[in-house]
Amino acid sequence: MSSDLQTISAVKCFGGQQFIYSHYSETLKCTSKFSLYCPPQASESNKVPVIYFLSGLTSSVKELIQQSGFQKYAAQHGICVVGPDTFPRDALPISPPITRAQMAAMYVDAETPGWSDHYKMYSYVTVELIKTIEEKFNFVQKDNRSVMGHSMGGHGALICSLRNPGLYKCCSAFAPLYNLEGAAEFMVNLIQAENVKDWDATKLIRNYKGPSLNIRIDQGAEDYILGMFSPDRFLSAALESKTTVSFNLIEGYDHGWFFIKTFIEDNFNHHAKFLKSSNNH
Amino acid sequence: MSSDLQTISAVKCFGGQQFIYSHYSETLKCTSKFSLYCPPQASESNKVPVIYFLSGLTSSVKELIQQSGFQKYAAQHGICVVGPDTFPRDALPISPPITRAQMAAMYVDAETPGWSDHYKMYSYVTVELIKTIEEKFNFVQKDNRSVMGHSMGGHGALICSLRNPGLYKCCSAFAPLYNLEGAAEFMVNLIQAENVKDWDATKLIRNYKGPSLNIRIDQGAEDYILGMFSPDRFLSAALESKTTVSFNLIEGYDHGWFFIKTFIEDNFNHHAKFLKSSNNH
Repeated sequence: MSSDLQTISAVKCFGGQQFIYSHYSETLKCTSKFSLYCPPQASESNKVPVIYFLSGLTSSVKELIQQSGFQKYAAQHGICVVGPDTFPRDALPISPPITRAQMAAMYVDAETPGWSDHYKMYSYVTVELIKTIEEKFNFVQKDNRSVMGHSMGGHGALICSLRNPGLYKCCSAFAPLYNLEGAAEFMVNLIQAENVKDWDATKLIRNYKGPSLNIRIDQGAEDYILGMFSPDRFLSAALESKTTVSFNLIEGYDHGWFFIKTFIEDNFNHHAKFLKSSNNH
Repeated sequence: MSSDLQTISAVKCFGGQQFIYSHYSETLKCTSKFSLYCPPQASESNKVPVIYFLSGLTSSVKELIQQSGFQKYAAQHGICVVGPDTFPRDALPISPPITRAQMAAMYVDAETPGWSDHYKMYSYVTVELIKTIEEKFNFVQKDNRSVMGHSMGGHGALICSLRNPGLYKCCSAFAPLYNLEGAAEFMVNLIQAENVKDWDATKLIRNYKGPSLNIRIDQGAEDYILGMFSPDRFLSAALESKTTVSFNLIEGYDHGWFFIKTFIEDNFNHHAKFLKSSNNH
């Protein structure tokens, strides 16, 4: 159970409020921040669904709310958006500077010594954060949620969905890590070699059985990560298990926020279709 | 005349390209960066109008392109958007850290010793930058431009328009400095006391004669700068000279980019009305 929330900031945006909160996480064993956008129509008597957005390596809670432009579409559709931090930042000493390996929490539950105390972003995102949001905010619907992510967070969105059939109404990913071979330098810190397959989106989708995950993927054709990961193997695996995936390869775009802001509206429309047809109000 | 442009970055966004360029400015006597968004429909045979966006104190060329979300509307309307840096950054030594006074170039031409060598943002924005854009980019229309700005840059947009009847087809400002009394600490460095009135938007609009400037202002009612500046005196002065101003006071909003991103679409619609009715293609 999470301790009380502290409000770090609250700013009006597209008629709603963009918040940043901090709380002590029992899962991460440190304080952690998340952003939360409350759309204008949300209230205790008009509860709204929630999209969880998992950001990529090096992002904090700020980039999503500053650079993606999602608030316009969250306000239009009446959807709450929650953006957790990307690693257990407050468990690390302030100096020396944080390394990329320390930032690469990979949305898994670490099992190796030195990492397993705090690096539990998978359980944080799929259990504690959801519980916190649904208990502490009386304007959100229970059990009507979806997940979206970018890059490392796109991998996060995929594996959180694939490992938890029914937890999310749909899933979308901007330029995700389609598999973990290209992220081996980070995985070796966190997970024993024989268990990496349990966190690999391509391997998970190959064996997926369960309700439709309504996966949408947007992928820039000029993205440097295409040289490191293999969307085609991911799609082959989806074909094997006959899992619905909408894969959009788009010419000219690269890996960053300019790509995300261009396609965030389409992604919100995709999520709204599944979140708003729900009876779970 | 500007020297050759160097491309710092080029990224696809909403079907167009978001660039950052660097060039040597004869006016500022140092290199200077600007952002330029080229909308998808622009070409040598389909030239487009230009909006110049003047950012506020402490901004570089990055905040506008990352945080305002303007690219969607620039792409919809087919408008090129140019965002200069906010002060002659490269004229300063790299260390010690730059002070707020050094960042506060105020879109004026400084006349005091120690500042007058480089602090000529007014001439840079109204003459050299326009010349550079219209000479170097064959997809922009000549003489079909407007100006928009935020905070210190909102003041910049107002004074550049008010001092140059006909230069811009319209002008809009997010939470501008309506007068210079609240910025006296910066003005004292740049301009002799008896000349400050020549750069004060309230004083300039009181005496304005010329074609309509089509001024639009958006102002958050929770903005802390309302305690430092006086929109009411600016509006009284506009009434005196019968100059068209649309002033929008909006409850709940503060001074920052969350406010700007909420109202950038309305501002682009305002500018498009004047830029696209032009015969100057």
